[in-house]
Amino acid sequence: MTNNLKPGERLDDLQIKGYEIIQSPGRFCFGMDAVLLSAFAKVKAGECVLDLGTGTGILPILLAAKTKGKHFTGLEIQEESADMARRSVRHNQLEEQIDIVTGDIKEASQIFGHGSMDVITTNPPYMIGGHGLANPESAKAIARHEVLCTLDDIIRESARTLKAGGRFYMVHRPFRLAEILTAMCEAKLEPKRMRLVYPYVDKEPNMVLIEGIRGAKSRMTVEPPLIVYEKDGSYTREILEHYGMTGTGKE
Amino acid sequence: MTNNLKPGERLDDLQIKGYEIIQSPGRFCFGMDAVLLSAFAKVKAGECVLDLGTGTGILPILLAAKTKGKHFTGLEIQEESADMARRSVRHNQLEEQIDIVTGDIKEASQIFGHGSMDVITTNPPYMIGGHGLANPESAKAIARHEVLCTLDDIIRESARTLKAGGRFYMVHRPFRLAEILTAMCEAKLEPKRMRLVYPYVDKEPNMVLIEGIRGAKSRMTVEPPLIVYEKDGSYTREILEHYGMTGTGKE
Repeated sequence: MTNNLKPGERLDDLQIKGYEIIQSPGRFCFGMDAVLLSAFAKVKAGECVLDLGTGTGILPILLAAKTKGKHFTGLEIQEESADMARRSVRHNQLEEQIDIVTGDIKEASQIFGHGSMDVITTNPPYMIGGHGLANPESAKAIARHEVLCTLDDIIRESARTLKAGGRFYMVHRPFRLAEILTAMCEAKLEPKRMRLVYPYVDKEPNMVLIEGIRGAKSRMTVEPPLIVYEKDGSYTREILEHYGMTGTGKE
Repeated sequence: MTNNLKPGERLDDLQIKGYEIIQSPGRFCFGMDAVLLSAFAKVKAGECVLDLGTGTGILPILLAAKTKGKHFTGLEIQEESADMARRSVRHNQLEEQIDIVTGDIKEASQIFGHGSMDVITTNPPYMIGGHGLANPESAKAIARHEVLCTLDDIIRESARTLKAGGRFYMVHRPFRLAEILTAMCEAKLEPKRMRLVYPYVDKEPNMVLIEGIRGAKSRMTVEPPLIVYEKDGSYTREILEHYGMTGTGKE
């Protein structure tokens, strides 16, 4: 199936259902944040899911593999990334379950309709603004910095596009936590569940996973810490499980 | 010095500078939250500190022992608790450093003046409302439930009573985190530092320690997890340190 690839691209095994993804190391490759978000998000049988800023389509593909959701849509503004995502969908024969749409997050509710989705996932750019970037139009800059959309844009459009009671799942950086929770409360996307990802048990967290429910009451659960590495630098058992790297039955 | 005690009261060793505190188990005894807040709060030499809802005065006494703050004031609405706090202050000969004021948190900025304090600490009631309580006027109910003041009251009065750049330190429950951060942002008491306290490394946190700075910019640090117990149920080294129970030099 490598005839599907363009120069600079490679095919990576996703360790689940035999699925593979086309990536281009010069542009952007998915990271642990996407894998942990796909494990944190809850998608029930028959639900419709939208992934905002889907990049190469990693979230829809992982969620199609892990859940019983009915349909997954990935919205991506960069045509080159959307093209890679579409080829990955075809490569995995997921055309009936996954659509990749080229478009702007700021117009999500117009594109898909108000109150149209059961679940929204997003692994958005973490860094504020794009000032001082050498290449603000590069694929990596757009994926990592708020060049084309802000946190407020994402939360506002998610609240509009979700049904009442619909669920929002985001991975982000802890240094923006106050901003994230405040914006979610203002948009009536009530924060209900949160988990911090700590690289080591004695280090600051470098990711936060958040669930919001549209129109829910105020009261949230903070889950146990997710620790990535043991003291010796090896992955913890939970991380190995998320990567599909256990299965011997041994503890 | 036990002639200082009233019926039902006892004198407890605070394991620091020989200080002791008068407590009444039938009313309320301080917990780990107060000890961890006294370690989390930063008080610099010469600063004036106000503790809102000081109870038996545990926070001012611990902070007087641990920091170089110039003066500490404890505000307490229950006269019986304030009286115990005053007797503990005298017992420890801290009258020059600590004042205990009987009064209402909702009037803190009127009592002490707008912009009058460098630091505010608070270990407020955690539970929302006082509905359904058998004894809503009991000392325990008032200390644990928002019978006499709400989270919003505390944050609003703290923002008013702090100087620009002044620091706010609170311990609370994680289930109210979204509400806490949103109220702090609205009051311009910007959340800058946060630490979650997990009883065990694989359990949900049961306390959150928060620092806010009046008028600061938006960007916060989430600190490493604070774990209370080892797997075998013994205290972790960090907890032992906060209780003054180490000192052998061994790791």
